[in-house]
Parts: sequence; structure tokens; C-alpha cells
Amino acid sequence: MELKKEGNFSEWYSKVLFEAGIVDVRYPIKGMPVYMPWGFRAMDYMFGILEHMLDEAGHDKVLFPVAIPQTIFSRESEHIRGFEGEVLWVTHGGKNMLEEQLVLRPTSETSMYPIFALWIRSHADLPLKVYQTTAIYRHETKATRPLIRGREVYWNEGHSAHATRDDAVHHVESIIDIYRRFYEQLCLPFKLIKRPEHDKFAGADYTYAFDTVMPDGKTLQIGTVHNLGQNFAKAYDVMFCDEDGENKHVHQSSYGISMRALAAVLSVHGDDKGLVLPFDISPVQIVFIPIYSKGNKNEVDEYLREAYGRANKKYRCRYDDGDKRPGDKFYYWELKGVPVRVEAGMRDIEKKKLTIVDRLGNKLQVDYDAFDDAILSVIKSYSAHLRDAARKFFDDHLSDAGSFDELADIMNSKRGFITAGWCGDMECVEKLKSLAVDVLGYEGGEMKDRKCIVCGKEGKQVVLGKPY
Amino acid sequence: MELKKEGNFSEWYSKVLFEAGIVDVRYPIKGMPVYMPWGFRAMDYMFGILEHMLDEAGHDKVLFPVAIPQTIFSRESEHIRGFEGEVLWVTHGGKNMLEEQLVLRPTSETSMYPIFALWIRSHADLPLKVYQTTAIYRHETKATRPLIRGREVYWNEGHSAHATRDDAVHHVESIIDIYRRFYEQLCLPFKLIKRPEHDKFAGADYTYAFDTVMPDGKTLQIGTVHNLGQNFAKAYDVMFCDEDGENKHVHQSSYGISMRALAAVLSVHGDDKGLVLPFDISPVQIVFIPIYSKGNKNEVDEYLREAYGRANKKYRCRYDDGDKRPGDKFYYWELKGVPVRVEAGMRDIEKKKLTIVDRLGNKLQVDYDAFDDAILSVIKSYSAHLRDAARKFFDDHLSDAGSFDELADIMNSKRGFITAGWCGDMECVEKLKSLAVDVLGYEGGEMKDRKCIVCGKEGKQVVLGKPY
Repeated sequence: MELKKEGNFSEWYSKVLFEAGIVDVRYPIKGMPVYMPWGFRAMDYMFGILEHMLDEAGHDKVLFPVAIPQTIFSRESEHIRGFEGEVLWVTHGGKNMLEEQLVLRPTSETSMYPIFALWIRSHADLPLKVYQTTAIYRHETKATRPLIRGREVYWNEGHSAHATRDDAVHHVESIIDIYRRFYEQLCLPFKLIKRPEHDKFAGADYTYAFDTVMPDGKTLQIGTVHNLGQNFAKAYDVMFCDEDGENKHVHQSSYGISMRALAAVLSVHGDDKGLVLPFDISPVQIVFIPIYSKGNKNEVDEYLREAYGRANKKYRCRYDDGDKRPGDKFYYWELKGVPVRVEAGMRDIEKKKLTIVDRLGNKLQVDYDAFDDAILSVIKSYSAHLRDAARKFFDDHLSDAGSFDELADIMNSKRGFITAGWCGDMECVEKLKSLAVDVLGYEGGEMKDRKCIVCGKEGKQVVLGKPY
Repeated sequence: MELKKEGNFSEWYSKVLFEAGIVDVRYPIKGMPVYMPWGFRAMDYMFGILEHMLDEAGHDKVLFPVAIPQTIFSRESEHIRGFEGEVLWVTHGGKNMLEEQLVLRPTSETSMYPIFALWIRSHADLPLKVYQTTAIYRHETKATRPLIRGREVYWNEGHSAHATRDDAVHHVESIIDIYRRFYEQLCLPFKLIKRPEHDKFAGADYTYAFDTVMPDGKTLQIGTVHNLGQNFAKAYDVMFCDEDGENKHVHQSSYGISMRALAAVLSVHGDDKGLVLPFDISPVQIVFIPIYSKGNKNEVDEYLREAYGRANKKYRCRYDDGDKRPGDKFYYWELKGVPVRVEAGMRDIEKKKLTIVDRLGNKLQVDYDAFDDAILSVIKSYSAHLRDAARKFFDDHLSDAGSFDELADIMNSKRGFITAGWCGDMECVEKLKSLAVDVLGYEGGEMKDRKCIVCGKEGKQVVLGKPY
């Protein structure tokens, strides 16, 4: 199998995701792949990290129904305009038409907020912060891609309600900080970008997005945080009685990170040998491979199994004593992206050593008795290398375009993120789209003056890119 | 709030599930309640126990899509006959009719097995054992009840494929053993009953079910294990090449435990004060409540917080230093079902003691320094008491009926499980149904000769009950 990633990303992605056991796209519905064991575990650990961070920040974990009655779904007018063209409809139960048609949630604002209206009575019930990790559904008509664009999107979505606009703004900032730490743990660089008006979440006051750059230079949105203002609160009567006895609408926010986080992690870190998983999400973190030579199987196993037993108390470990040759085992676990491999053969045993190799190829022999400390430092340096390599690739894909021609040149070569000026007019957006370029928005929400790259009028500096 | 459980179970159930924060039935779709934070965490821990057991038994965790194309769904004829009347249909995407209508999975055999056919090539790929924890959908037209009967059913389902019939039979036995251990951990007694032909899973060779008895004397099915034989394998071409190079159909099994496990646990263990949670699934296992008297808040907090800090490393603990009076806190955490409460006030501090009270009301004062050991023994005795009380209730609801009149008497009083003879004819089943009694099946799969309680003909001993 040829797995050349550079210049061949799209094919690499499909092949590696299947060969490494992440998803199987042969399921007979477009955009609904099967999560295979290795892929689902990695996703499970990934969302586990995020859930833990949200727990620490005082969120409650809930689960709301998958279906939303049509009348409830339609109540927030901006929101319904944004989504009605792409929702899946449940219309029949058995052989009978349902009394009211149901939407499969495309996101959960409209299922949750009518219930928030019942849960929230007074200021003492605020802030309300909940999340759920579940699937949402959209009738994608564009080309689908596993973990990137599909009809069933696995994600973690959070929702909050606050007494004041300030509280909501602060909460949005705290969630941005959580998402930032989440991506740091996955060793994945990103840009925080405030979306332009025409691309904010339907029903939101404003939207911050996390974008990263993929190996083909296209950008990928890997997280969004919306300040919803009081728009949904007014549509769904989410009110509270404040300290003065006055009834007021709450201020809300919602935010989500989907399976796309996994897509980005697999794409950015992977190499020609297959996946390269961040330590914290790998279903197997350390694989132990005994190197047998004639007649010494028991001796090698005894020696290496003790180290395995010790490590297995702290990390997710696997002892691979299968029948394959060591080289075949290396190949298999490299394809799977396992971060660390520990080997021992007679030469190690004689010197009371263990050989540690990380997935990036860094190899060292350590004293058997110093193994616990050595593993810890290997994990640290592995994560640092992963982070550095990803950062280097990311930084290599930052450009600035002083003119439309310059932009066209960049889009014909490495793409990535391009800073440039934009006047705010949709007409100029249309011209950018002729290069398959979108206005991603204002980096960090900052509004710097800069002339429009298309029409030359006064404008602001924005980040451009060709998004997935 | 009056929470009398005995003689008032149905009302008790609705009230407690809402007041304790398990589910909210006010969501505007019948049979699709919202899982509230306390309820979802308990369910999460509950399925976590089961997942861990399945992991240990070599299962892989996967996730298959929620939707199944109509043509695929219809391929196993018995199965489709059993389910087509009660499935929910997705027919439209946006404003357009879908090219092929989709079923929301009512169970996942028909979504998984076409993919198993691709995953399984040779005997080396067997056994295949996977599970997923997800929701299934049925268009219930009967009265719904949260966690018992609904249109969205959260569950854990396992699926296996084997080379031989013997392997499948042994696997079914091993799963029965896992489910047995799962319910032991939840302190819940059950009967293992082989369902009669007319009540087995649609498409199975045979079905074993776990049934328990609820406080109102009705029985509740809380788990099923099906030997599917080669029925689905033939419908979905799930084949393997055996050691002799011959292509054969696999033998399969499937099995599931749903949110009903939680319904049974809450119902059987609960009391007039609210929930009584098994230690392992309680979102908070030990709550610490400081008993302040004038001016000693700091001293009490310092004293009790140290014990809390130590316990919190091992258990899920909460320190409740809120503004409410101790009595109100006791009431709140009792309603929630928290297994153990630890208190300390000045009298405890003076004697260097801590007061431990379990949810069943057992109270003891222990030496501060002996706290760690004391907690361990309190947890053990709490679980034993819970198990004993549930067992006593269960045993009190076992009867034998020598005649139809005797059966009628039992059904008019305590109900529960009733052993009696049945000839196997559906006509006699119809007569039993006039008493709202069903033939649950053969206990442990044993076929003992016994004359039919309805017609007097030769038959076998069965277990009868009035199921939910």
C-alpha cells in the first residue's frame, strides 16, 4: 500500500482512515459511515478530554431527544431560515403519517430551549450550563467526506443561559479558553476567527470559530462558539425573575466541537506510514513488542511483561505476542498511530535495557530500572515534537496578500490562511469566491483598518481561505 | 411532597423521577423525555459498568449509523415482519423526498450485518464481538413511561459472529453470565427465562430474557440475549472461509440492556424518601455535610474537608457547604439517593469522630483516624442490605398456581412471578391474557413436564407474569 501524504492528501486520507480502522464508508447511506473500533475509541477519548474540561467548568451532562416537532423547530425565524433547507424529516410511524412532522436535530438549540424555559425560574437558577455528546443530522447535498462533512455528525455541544449580557460574554470567553486548551492537548494549532455577519450561526449575535489548515492547504472549521444574545430566549420564552422581582429574558450561548477535530488531528499529524496519534487520545498508548530469537521466548516475555505490567497501570498498553514477525508488528502499530513502542530482545536483556521508539522514529535505549521515568520523558518529547511539527506546517501556510493577483497566486500554490483587506460588501465576497476563497473573518475579533483587496475601498483586515 | 411508594407506585415513580432529576417528560414528543443531569450521569455510570465487562470479554466498541435504507432493512423476512409496524421513517431531506426511505434503527442487526459481511473474510476474523451504546427508535402507540417504554430508547447492544453453532451457544452463555454479574453489581435480583416461541426476538432461533418484578407486582424485561443462528447471516451474506477453504455462513448472537435497567434499579430500591442508588452508579457516592454551630464554621470545615479530600481521591464525593440547614440538605441528598452521608459537628470534633449515615438509615460514629476503613465497610454493608431487601421483595413475589382460579387470585393480589403448567397452545395463551397474564417462558431454559393450567393437557412448567 502506497500512503504518500504530500501532494496526495485526499487519497491518503481515505486510505489511511479505512486501513487504520477509523471509519468504513461502505455503509449504504451517503455521508453516514460506520465508526470502526479504533476510530470510535479515539473519538471517545477525544470527547472525554473535552467533557472533563466542561465538567470542571461546572457543566452538567444531559441528553435531549433526537427529534424536534416542526412547530417548535420553526419558532426562531433566523434559525429556521438557516437550517430548514437541510434537515431530515421524520414523517411516518409504522404505516401511518405522524400527526406532526419531526426534524432530526441539526443542532439542539430548538430542542433544549423550550425546556430551559421550564427549568429556569429565578436568578438562582443561573448560569445554566449543560452539554451533550451525541449526533446531529443534516441532509448534505454536497460531496461528503468521513469526519469532515456528513449527514450524521458526532459532536459535543454546550449550551448556557445567563442573567446578563456581560455574563454571557465572559462565558463565551471561558469556552474559547477551554477549546484552546483542548486543541493544545491534541497538539493542533488553530486560528480563532470572528466570523463575518454573513457567515455567523443562524440566530446568533456573533460567532467565533476555530479554524485550522489541512495538508492540502484548505482550511477546516473545527469549533464554534456563539453568543446568541436574547434571540432564542425571546422565541422560546426563556425568562428568569431577577433579584428585584422583574422578569427578564436570559442571555445565551452555544458552542460545539465535532468529529472534525478528529479529522484535523489525523490529517495534520499523520505521515506516509499512517496515523500519528496524540498520546491522550490513542486507544493504545504504548505497545510492547518482544523480539524473540531461538528458544528464548519465555525469557524475553518474562523480562518485557514485567515492564508492560508496570506501565499498564498508568497508560493504555498492549502486549503484542502474536505470531507475526517484529517488522510486521511495527508496520501494523505505526499504521494505527500508536505513540510509543517498547521492544526487548536478547541484546536488551543482556545489558538490562529496554528500547523505546516513538511514532516519529526517535529511538533510545534506557536502563531497565529507569523505565518509568524514561517513558514519562518520551511522552513529553513526543507531544512537543508533534506540536512543533504541526506548528511549523501551520506557520508555513500563513500569507498576506496585497492584491487580488497575489491572492490568486497563493491560492494556486500553497493556500492556507491569507490576511488581506475586505470592505464588507457581499459583491466583493462573490469575486473572492471566483477563486474559491471565503472570508473567514476577523482574527481574534480584531478590526484593523485595511483597504479592500477587491474594490480598493476602506475596509478591515480579514483572514481568507478556501474552507472545506 | 408525599412520596408513599407502597400501594402508590405509579405516582411515586413519576414524581421521584422528576423531583430527583432523572428525566423531564415535558418534552413535546410523547415517549421522548429529556435526560436530566442526575439521571444521565447515573445512566452513564451504569452503562460504563456494562461496557467495562464487555471490554474485558474482548468486545470492540463501535458506532453504526442511526438510519437504515428500506431495502436493507427488509431483507430478513421474520425480522421485518416483527418490526415494520413500529418503525419511524425518514422520508424527506429539506424540501425533497429522499430517493430511498430510511428507517431509524429499531435495533441494529440490519445496519450492522451487511458491514459484517465485508469485515469477515476467514475463520481468523472470528469471533467478531462488538457493542455500541446508543439510542434506538420505535413508534410506540401504547402508553409510554419514562425509562420503561418510549420512542427513543437508550441502550447498550452487543453483536457477535462465530464459526460454529457451538461457539455461538457458548458465547450466549458467557453474555448471560456478564448480564448476571452486571445485575449483581446493581443489587437487583432477576429471573433468567427462555422466551416461548411466540415471544422470541423476530429473526432469532431462541431468546433468553432477564425479568425482574416491579413494586406494583408487574414484571419488567431488563435484558435479552438472542441466538440468531444463521438467519441473518443468510439474509445478509455474512460468510467466512473456514480452515478447509470452504465458504460458510457465520452463526450469530445479539443482546441488549436498555435504560430499563435504570428504571428497575430506581423502582426496586427507592423508598418513601426518594431514590436509593446502588453505590457504583450514583453520580455522587458520598456527600459530606458540615454541621455548623455558632462561630465554628471554619473549624468544622477544616476538620471535615480533610476527610472529604481523602475520600474524594477514591470515590465521587461532594462537599455541601451551602446555605441550607442540615436537615434540608439531608432531605435533598436522600431524595437524590446518595448512598453515604458523612457529617461532623462540634460534638464529633471534640471526640475526634465522624458520623456516617447510609441511605438506608444505618448510622455510626467512627474514629476520625479509622475513617478510610470505616467507609469501605459501610459501602459493603450498604450494598449487602440493598441486595437483601431487594431479594426479600423479589422472593415475596414468587408463587405457584395449581389452577386457573389460584392464578386469578394471585393476579388480584400481589402478582409477581407465578410458576404453572402450559401446554404450548396459543389458545390457552389467549385465555391467560384475559387475566392480563403472559407466558414469560421457561425458567433457565428448563423443560419440566406439567399439565396446562388452562386446558389440562400435557405441557411444561412455565413462568407467568403481567409484564410492562
